[in-house]
Amino acid sequence: MLINCVAYQNGRKLADIPVEDISDYVAREDCFVWVALRDATFDELQVMRVEFGLHELAVEDAQRGHQRPKIEEYGDSIFAVLKMLEMREDDELAVGEVDIFAGPNFVLSNRQGSTQDFLGVRARAEREPYLLKQGAGFVLYALMDAVVDRYFPIVDSLESELEQIEERIFIRGSQRDSIQRLYALKRKVMVMRHCVAPLLDAIGKLHGGRVPAVCANSQEYFRDVHDHLYRINGILDTIRDTIGTAIQVNLSMVALEEGEVNKRLAAWAAIFAVLTAFAGIWGMNFKNMPELDWRWGYPVALGLMFSVSFYLYRRFRRAGWL
Amino acid sequence: MLINCVAYQNGRKLADIPVEDISDYVAREDCFVWVALRDATFDELQVMRVEFGLHELAVEDAQRGHQRPKIEEYGDSIFAVLKMLEMREDDELAVGEVDIFAGPNFVLSNRQGSTQDFLGVRARAEREPYLLKQGAGFVLYALMDAVVDRYFPIVDSLESELEQIEERIFIRGSQRDSIQRLYALKRKVMVMRHCVAPLLDAIGKLHGGRVPAVCANSQEYFRDVHDHLYRINGILDTIRDTIGTAIQVNLSMVALEEGEVNKRLAAWAAIFAVLTAFAGIWGMNFKNMPELDWRWGYPVALGLMFSVSFYLYRRFRRAGWL
Amino acid sequence: MLINCVAYQNGRKLADIPVEDISDYVAREDCFVWVALRDATFDELQVMRVEFGLHELAVEDAQRGHQRPKIEEYGDSIFAVLKMLEMREDDELAVGEVDIFAGPNFVLSNRQGSTQDFLGVRARAEREPYLLKQGAGFVLYALMDAVVDRYFPIVDSLESELEQIEERIFIRGSQRDSIQRLYALKRKVMVMRHCVAPLLDAIGKLHGGRVPAVCANSQEYFRDVHDHLYRINGILDTIRDTIGTAIQVNLSMVALEEGEVNKRLAAWAAIFAVLTAFAGIWGMNFKNMPELDWRWGYPVALGLMFSVSFYLYRRFRRAGWL
Amino acid sequence: MLINCVAYQNGRKLADIPVEDISDYVAREDCFVWVALRDATFDELQVMRVEFGLHELAVEDAQRGHQRPKIEEYGDSIFAVLKMLEMREDDELAVGEVDIFAGPNFVLSNRQGSTQDFLGVRARAEREPYLLKQGAGFVLYALMDAVVDRYFPIVDSLESELEQIEERIFIRGSQRDSIQRLYALKRKVMVMRHCVAPLLDAIGKLHGGRVPAVCANSQEYFRDVHDHLYRINGILDTIRDTIGTAIQVNLSMVALEEGEVNKRLAAWAAIFAVLTAFAGIWGMNFKNMPELDWRWGYPVALGLMFSVSFYLYRRFRRAGWL
Amino acid sequence: MLINCVAYQNGRKLADIPVEDISDYVAREDCFVWVALRDATFDELQVMRVEFGLHELAVEDAQRGHQRPKIEEYGDSIFAVLKMLEMREDDELAVGEVDIFAGPNFVLSNRQGSTQDFLGVRARAEREPYLLKQGAGFVLYALMDAVVDRYFPIVDSLESELEQIEERIFIRGSQRDSIQRLYALKRKVMVMRHCVAPLLDAIGKLHGGRVPAVCANSQEYFRDVHDHLYRINGILDTIRDTIGTAIQVNLSMVALEEGEVNKRLAAWAAIFAVLTAFAGIWGMNFKNMPELDWRWGYPVALGLMFSVSFYLYRRFRRAGWL
Repeated sequence: MLINCVAYQNGRKLADIPVEDISDYVAREDCFVWVALRDATFDELQVMRVEFGLHELAVEDAQRGHQRPKIEEYGDSIFAVLKMLEMREDDELAVGEVDIFAGPNFVLSNRQGSTQDFLGVRARAEREPYLLKQGAGFVLYALMDAVVDRYFPIVDSLESELEQIEERIFIRGSQRDSIQRLYALKRKVMVMRHCVAPLLDAIGKLHGGRVPAVCANSQEYFRDVHDHLYRINGILDTIRDTIGTAIQVNLSMVALEEGEVNKRLAAWAAIFAVLTAFAGIWGMNFKNMPELDWRWGYPVALGLMFSVSFYLYRRFRRAGWL
Repeated sequence: MLINCVAYQNGRKLADIPVEDISDYVAREDCFVWVALRDATFDELQVMRVEFGLHELAVEDAQRGHQRPKIEEYGDSIFAVLKMLEMREDDELAVGEVDIFAGPNFVLSNRQGSTQDFLGVRARAEREPYLLKQGAGFVLYALMDAVVDRYFPIVDSLESELEQIEERIFIRGSQRDSIQRLYALKRKVMVMRHCVAPLLDAIGKLHGGRVPAVCANSQEYFRDVHDHLYRINGILDTIRDTIGTAIQVNLSMVALEEGEVNKRLAAWAAIFAVLTAFAGIWGMNFKNMPELDWRWGYPVALGLMFSVSFYLYRRFRRAGWL
Repeated sequence: MLINCVAYQNGRKLADIPVEDISDYVAREDCFVWVALRDATFDELQVMRVEFGLHELAVEDAQRGHQRPKIEEYGDSIFAVLKMLEMREDDELAVGEVDIFAGPNFVLSNRQGSTQDFLGVRARAEREPYLLKQGAGFVLYALMDAVVDRYFPIVDSLESELEQIEERIFIRGSQRDSIQRLYALKRKVMVMRHCVAPLLDAIGKLHGGRVPAVCANSQEYFRDVHDHLYRINGILDTIRDTIGTAIQVNLSMVALEEGEVNKRLAAWAAIFAVLTAFAGIWGMNFKNMPELDWRWGYPVALGLMFSVSFYLYRRFRRAGWL
Repeated sequence: MLINCVAYQNGRKLADIPVEDISDYVAREDCFVWVALRDATFDELQVMRVEFGLHELAVEDAQRGHQRPKIEEYGDSIFAVLKMLEMREDDELAVGEVDIFAGPNFVLSNRQGSTQDFLGVRARAEREPYLLKQGAGFVLYALMDAVVDRYFPIVDSLESELEQIEERIFIRGSQRDSIQRLYALKRKVMVMRHCVAPLLDAIGKLHGGRVPAVCANSQEYFRDVHDHLYRINGILDTIRDTIGTAIQVNLSMVALEEGEVNKRLAAWAAIFAVLTAFAGIWGMNFKNMPELDWRWGYPVALGLMFSVSFYLYRRFRRAGWL
Repeated sequence: MLINCVAYQNGRKLADIPVEDISDYVAREDCFVWVALRDATFDELQVMRVEFGLHELAVEDAQRGHQRPKIEEYGDSIFAVLKMLEMREDDELAVGEVDIFAGPNFVLSNRQGSTQDFLGVRARAEREPYLLKQGAGFVLYALMDAVVDRYFPIVDSLESELEQIEERIFIRGSQRDSIQRLYALKRKVMVMRHCVAPLLDAIGKLHGGRVPAVCANSQEYFRDVHDHLYRINGILDTIRDTIGTAIQVNLSMVALEEGEVNKRLAAWAAIFAVLTAFAGIWGMNFKNMPELDWRWGYPVALGLMFSVSFYLYRRFRRAGWL
C-alpha cells in the first residue's frame, strides 16, 4: 500500500508525484524522492524496483520479509532492514519490520506488520528544509532514529519487569511465579537482542572508517544512533546476565524453603513420636506396672507427656525449626 | 555414480558429453562443463581428478568424506564441502555431504549419503541462460543456495520442537519428559551447528574483501547465502541458549514439585500423628482414667479427634500445603 | 548552575570572566578557558553551545544525561561522558554523571546528580602552572583522573563486602542471608561495570595509536588512567566470577544442610519407631504372653527398649547423623 | 637413543651416516639429513645442537620436555613440539611428546615417552622419492600428519564413551556411575584439548599469510593438517559442551528420582498411618465402645481397614506415586 | 633499602658505586649500571628518579605499589611490574611485587613485600660476562625469567591440591570438605591468574612485531618467557574449568547421597510401620478376636511380624535401598 510518494527540491516539497513518474524525478540530480510503502505487495515492489533501479536480491529480501536486521550496500545504494518492536497488550513483543532503500537522491521505505508509522519523521523533515537538503543519508538516519527511539520504552518495560520479579524473589512461596516470569522475560530479551545486536554491528560501519557515500555527510548522526543501540544492547546484556543469576538464586530459594519445610516436619514428627512412644509404653499389658494403679498416675503421665512436648517445642522454636 | 555430465556454451546446453571428453571441453575457454556425481567411487573420482586436473588433497578429502564444511582454494579452483541435512522419520537428523569443485569453467559436485538432489537447480539454470553465462561462480552459488535453503525447514522444526517443550515445561509431572526432549534437542542443535558455523566463516570470505576469482562476479549472491546462514546460526544460538535456561528452569520445577510433595506429606503425617497420639493416650492402661468410664466418652473422644484433624486439614489447606 | 568560569594565560589565572565573554577569550590563541557547570539547565547549555561553538548532538546528549560513558570526537573537540559513583548511606550505589567538552583551548565540564566536586582539581592545577600550560588535554586528564580515583574506595568496599559474605558462606544457617547479599552485590558490580567497561574502551583510544590532537601531549597520562580502569575492571571481573561460584557453593551448602537435617530426622524417627514398635508388641492383647506376667517383666521391657534406643543413638552419633 | 641417521640426495637414500658426519652433509646444499632420536639424553642433544647448529633455547626445551605444543621459528629453522596421545589399557590417556627441528635441509625428531614410532613415515617417504625431494617442509608435514592422524581413534573413543554414558543417563539408578564417568571423560577431553588447541593456532601460521621459508612449498599440506586439527577441536568442543549439559541433566535426574522416592515414601507412610490410626482407635480403653462387643466387629474392622488401604493404594497408583 | 649498586663494563663488574655516581656511569655509553632496591622509600626512589632520569608517572607507580603486572614504554626506557608469588605456610598465596626500570644501559629493580631475592640472577650473570654484554634487555629477561620460574612450583601445588580434592570427590561424606577446598582453591587460582594473565599480554609485545629497542636483541628470550607464561596460564584455565565442573559434580553427589539417605529412611520407616500396624491390630480391644486366645497366638504373631519385616528387609536390600 502506497502511503506517500513525494518529490523534494532543495529540501522543500515539490509535489506528490504518481508512482510512474518516480524514475523521471530520480533522474534529475537536483531532486530527491521519498516514497513510503506499507505491507507492499509483490507488484508494488516490482514497480519500485523498476522505477528506482533496485537490486533484485534486495527486493527479494524485502518481499519475503523476516530478514535479520542488516545494512547492505548494492553499488551506490544501501538496503537496510530494521525491526520494529511493540509491546502487545498481552505483554508479548510484536516484531514488525521496515525495509529501507536509500540511493543518492531517493529513499524508499516499506513497513511490514507494525502499527507504528513514520509520519512524524516526514513532518519534521518537511518543517526543517535545511535538514532535508542533506539528502538520503539524513532521511535514512531520521527513520533509523525513529525506530531505535521506540526501543527505549520497551527496554524500560523489560527492566521494570525484572525489578518487579526481583522484589518478589526472596519472598517465601513466590518461586513458581518468579521462575515462570523470569523465563518469559528471558524470551523477550532474546527476541529484542535479535533485533538490536545485528543492527549494532551494521550501523557501526556507517561512521568512522570507510563509509558508504550515501551516509558520508551524516556520520555523526549515525554514530549517535549507534550509541543508542550500544546502550540498549548493554542494558539487554545486563538483564540477561541478571536473569541467569536470578534463576540460580530462585533455585537456591526453592531449596532453602524445602529445607525449612523439612525442618518443620522433622520437629512436629519428633514431638508426636515422643507422645506416641510414651502412650505406647503405658499402653503395654504388663501385669506389674505399679504406676498404672496410682491414683494420680494418669494426670501425672499426661503432665509428663505435655511437658516433654512443650520442652521440645520450645527447643525447636529457639533453633528456628518451628 | 554419474548423474549428469553436460557441456554448455553461452549459457545454453551444448550436449551430454562422455566423461572422457571432459578435458577437451574444459580446455575450450568458451565452454562450461557441469558434472554431477552421487556417492562416487574411488575410480570415478580418479577419472575426474585427471579430466579436470583437480588437486590431490581435495580429491582425497572428497573420497574420504566426513569433512567439516569448508571452502578451500587450490590455485584458481575452489573446493567446497557442504553438509546436507534431512530430518529422518525417527526424528533424528541425517547428515549427508556434497563436495563441490569449481574451476574457471567447470563445476563438479559429488553428493554423498543424502536423498536430496540438485536436479531443480540445473533445470532452473538451463531455463535461464543469462544466469548460466555468469559461469562457475553462479553455479556454485546456486548449489550452495539449494543446500542452505533446505536448512530452513529443519531449523523451523527445531524451533517448534522447542516451543512444544516450553508449553509443557511448567506443567506438573512433565519434567522427566521435558528434560529428555531438551537433551535430544540440544544434540540436534549441536549437529546442525557443526554444519552451519564453519560454513558461515568460509562463505564470509567469498564476498567483501579479497575474493577468489571464480566467485568475483557473484559476490552479492554469496553475501545473500552468507546472510541466510547468519540468520540460521543466530536462531541456533538462541535455541541453544534457551535450552540451557530451560534445563535450569526444569531443575527448579523438579525441586518445586518435590517441595510440594514434601509439604503434602508433612501435612498428612501431622494429621495422622495427632490422631494416633490421641488414640494412644486413651489406649493407656491407667486404672484411674475417669473419661473412659463416661457414657459418651467414646463418641466425644472420636469427635474431638476428628475435629482436631479437620481443623488441621483446613489450616494446611489454607496454607496451600494440601 | 555556573560554578566557575575562568580564563588562563600561560598557565596562570587571568580572571573570572562573564559567560558572554567566553567566545572572545576562546578566540585568543594564547588563552585557555575552563568553565565548570553543575546540573546545567537547557538555557545554560545553549549559551555554552554558542560561546564555545559546540556540536549540536553533543550538547543534546549532555542535556538529556543518562548517557553511557564514552569519548567522542567532533572535529578538533572531544566530548567525554564519565559516570561518578558514590556509595549511599543505605549501601546502594548512586550514579552521577559528568560531561566534559574539551577543545584546543577550552574545557567545559557539567556535573549532574552527584555531590562530588572538582574544586581540588582546579586548585591543584592553579598551584602548578606548568601543568596547566599543557592545555585542555591535561585538564581533561585531571578531571578523568579525579573521577576514576574515586572509583577505588567503591571497588574496595565491594571487595570487602564479598569477603564478609565469604566468611559466612560455610557457616550453618546463614545461607538465606548469604544469597541475598550475593545477589545485591552482583547488582552493584553490574552497575559499576557499566560505568567502567565502556570508559575503558574509550580511553584506550587516547594513547598508543592515532590520538585526538587535544590529547596528543598527554598520552602517558591517559595511559595511566587507562591502567587504573583496567585494574578496576579486572577486580570487578574477579568479583563477578567469585559471586557466580559463591552462589553455586551456597546452593551446595543448602543441599548439604538439608541432607544433615534429613539424616537427623531419619535417626530420631528410627529410634522412636523402634520404641513404639516394642511398646506396640507388648500392648497386644494375646492371652498367652508369659512375659507380661513376670514380676520384672515391665522393668526388663523398659530396660530393653532404652538399651536399644541408646545403642541406636550411639551408632547414629558415630555415623555423624546426630 | 639414536634410531636413524640418514642422508638423502634428490629424494633417494644416500647412506646411513655416523652422527659426527651430520654437519658435513648438512653443509652440502644438495643433501638432506633426517635424524630420528628417542628419549634422547642430554649429551645426545648437545651433539645434535653442535652438528645441526640448533638454537640453545630450543634444545633446552627439547631436553626438559613437557612443553606445550608449539611451532617456533629460530632464524631459518623451525622448532615444533607435538603431543602424542595413546589410550592406555586402564582407559587413561598417556601423553608423549615429539620435538622436531626442521632446517633448510635437515629434519631432527626426538620422541619422548611414547610407544608410537614414525618408521612408517620414513618408509613411505623413501618409497616415493618425488615427495622427499620437496625437502624438510614435506617431512615436517609427514611427521605432523602421522601424529595428528593418531588423534582420530582417540577422539572417536571419547565420542563413543560419551554415547555410552548418554544411553544410560535417563536410566533409573545409574546417576552415580554416570556422573563419575562424565567427570573422567571431561578430564580426558581437557588433556586432549591441551594437545590440540595450541597446535591448531601454531599450524595456522604455516599456511595462508607469511609462512616460514621451510614450509613455503608445502602450504597446502599444512592446511590439510590444520583442517584435521580444526575438526578434532570442533568435536572436542562439542563433547565438552555436551558433558556440561549432561552433568546438568544428571542433576535433574537425581532430583527427579529423589522426588519419586519421596512420593513412594509418602504414599506408603499414608497407608500405614491410616491403618495404625484405625487400630489405635479400636485399641482405646473406653468402656462404652459398642462395636467392640459385636460378633463381627473384628472382621468388619479388619475389612474396613484393608478396604481403606486398598483404596489409597489404588489412588496413589493412579496418581503415579506407587 | 639499597641492596646492590654495581657498574659493569664489557660484561665485567667494574665496581660497587655510590648512588650519587649513578648518573655519571649511565652517561658513559660503554658502561652498564644495575641497581637493586628492596622496599624502597619515597626518598630512595626520588634519588633514583633523578640519577636515572626516570619518568614521573612510572616512579609514582613504583612508589604506590599494588600495580597490575604490566610493561610500559617511556621513551627509550621500559617500566615493568611483575608479581612475585609465594605459598605461605598457612597455605595462602602471598603476593609481592618487583618493579623494574630498564633503559639503554641500566636496570633498576625494586622488590616489595616478598622474601625472594635475585642474588642468584646477578651471580650467574656475573659468571657469564658474554651474557651481560647483551645489556639491559638480557638483564630484564633474566629477572623476569627468575620471577616466572618461581610460578611453576606454585601452579604445581595448585594442581596437586586439585588432584587431592578429586580423589575424594566421589567418596561418601566428604562433600562439605570438598566444596570448601574447591572454593579456597578457586580463590588462589584467581589470585594467580591476576598475576599471570596481564603479564602474558604485556610480554607478548616484547617479541615478534614492533619491539622496544631495549629488548630487540633478546626477542627469543622473551618469547621463551612468554611461552612459560602461556603454559602456566593454560594450566590455570584448566584448573578453573575443572573446579567449575567439580563444584557441579559435588552438588550432584550431595543430592545423590541425600537420595540414598532418603531411601534408607523410607525403607526402615516402612519396616517399622508394618510392625506397628500389626501390633496395633492385635492391640485392639474387640471381644471376638479368636486368635488372641490361641495358645500359640503370640509366638505365631511375633513370627509373622518378623517374617514380614525380614522379607521387606531383603527386598529393600536387593533394591539397593539398604
